[in-house]
Amino acid sequence: MEVISEVVEKGVVERRFDVKTEDDTVPAIIWMPENVTGPIPVILIGHGGTQHKRSPNVLALGRRAVRHLGYAAVAIDAPGHGERVTDEAAANETRRHLERRIAAGPGKGSVLDMTPEQTAAFADRSARGVIEWQTTVDALEAEEGLIGRIGYWGLSMGTAIGLPFVASEPRVRAAVLGLAGLSHRPAAAAFEQAARRLTIPVLFMFQWDDELMSRQSGMDLFDALGSPDKAMHIHPGGHIATPLYERDAYEAFFKRHLAPS
Amino acid sequence: MEVISEVVEKGVVERRFDVKTEDDTVPAIIWMPENVTGPIPVILIGHGGTQHKRSPNVLALGRRAVRHLGYAAVAIDAPGHGERVTDEAAANETRRHLERRIAAGPGKGSVLDMTPEQTAAFADRSARGVIEWQTTVDALEAEEGLIGRIGYWGLSMGTAIGLPFVASEPRVRAAVLGLAGLSHRPAAAAFEQAARRLTIPVLFMFQWDDELMSRQSGMDLFDALGSPDKAMHIHPGGHIATPLYERDAYEAFFKRHLAPS
Repeated sequence: MEVISEVVEKGVVERRFDVKTEDDTVPAIIWMPENVTGPIPVILIGHGGTQHKRSPNVLALGRRAVRHLGYAAVAIDAPGHGERVTDEAAANETRRHLERRIAAGPGKGSVLDMTPEQTAAFADRSARGVIEWQTTVDALEAEEGLIGRIGYWGLSMGTAIGLPFVASEPRVRAAVLGLAGLSHRPAAAAFEQAARRLTIPVLFMFQWDDELMSRQSGMDLFDALGSPDKAMHIHPGGHIATPLYERDAYEAFFKRHLAPS
Repeated sequence: MEVISEVVEKGVVERRFDVKTEDDTVPAIIWMPENVTGPIPVILIGHGGTQHKRSPNVLALGRRAVRHLGYAAVAIDAPGHGERVTDEAAANETRRHLERRIAAGPGKGSVLDMTPEQTAAFADRSARGVIEWQTTVDALEAEEGLIGRIGYWGLSMGTAIGLPFVASEPRVRAAVLGLAGLSHRPAAAAFEQAARRLTIPVLFMFQWDDELMSRQSGMDLFDALGSPDKAMHIHPGGHIATPLYERDAYEAFFKRHLAPS
């Protein structure tokens, strides 16, 4: 863990560090309580598309993990996001494309075609993201005595990357996933296979009027999850309208599975 | 409130009382903290079919309301249930009929026809149940200074009675409902109208492999709920397999709506 900087705010240590993969440097943050003495559970936070490792909701989840649970939390910039944006114009176009899909209305954004370049970039990003999370867990485990049980939280792009990651990573014990469906996605067959391989507890979040996917697509993904212990929380509203009070549900879920009494 | 008896166990007062309607006496229980000094929120608990006001899950919810939240909880015997069973043979046949429906497998128990007598009894029970809950709330409010905000919890038959009750009762502020669908039920049109009238926050519980109703029927009911603030929690398994950990979700829900900070 190559430490870049560290600040402490209201009892929460926020450490910026880099993770080195074979062909890239991945900027990361760990939030943790001050004066950690033994291994504590850690929640890996996979941000959504166009977001980054310190977007407001990621930061809030990270700090809450420390303050409410006494856990650590880790976020990394996904490929092409946050500090890894190399082409501002391309990043802006990606954001506008997402905004257009959301503006299309419930279930309609899924049928707006992605260009072959966008599809290839999506698949590449997911594959790289999986490796980067695995390398991040390796780095965390190298810090002796810090890391206890590991959970994963990631919706939307955080599930596009996170679902294949947790399906291939036995060190992750429980995952909050969602805002994703089974159809209308690049590499849908591999994604479905990963879903069926899952055995860990999953809390699956879904928006009933999601612009980017149909209800059926979301239910198909929930059905595909191989985990015997799974739950689906559905709320009215669009892709970015998941109620903030569900943060309590995430915490109860991780508390149940990462630190059972 | 005609008090029949009272016991105190581990800080929980359990008071047995009777509620008098125009044509019946309804046996009721209130659980509350010792030495209540001001108005506290109360959760009304509507038990499921073949259960009663002191079935293990009702008792657990009542005691938890006191111990975890500092609230009161109230349960009553539905018509023909608990102390109101007048025909043991008929009650046993009702239970066996329900067991046969559950044994039919996911989604199959809904198509086993009820006899005209059973359909009539179902509709009559729901109508009477609504009046009995209203009378119970009247009785609670007559106890000056005891009752704060009111919530309702009831699944299955507790929703068959409870949904029209909370739709007609402005004193109820939030409801946990579920294990119910829109189709294949007596008086489906009136039930749907009640669902559409709802405006209070609703947490709607549903079992993905419920023997007594189809998935579509449950989603149709969730859609019909008029409440802008609603959530659907879906779990795998049959009608009686709702995970016990969801008790934490009920409590978080009531805490959010009955005692906002």
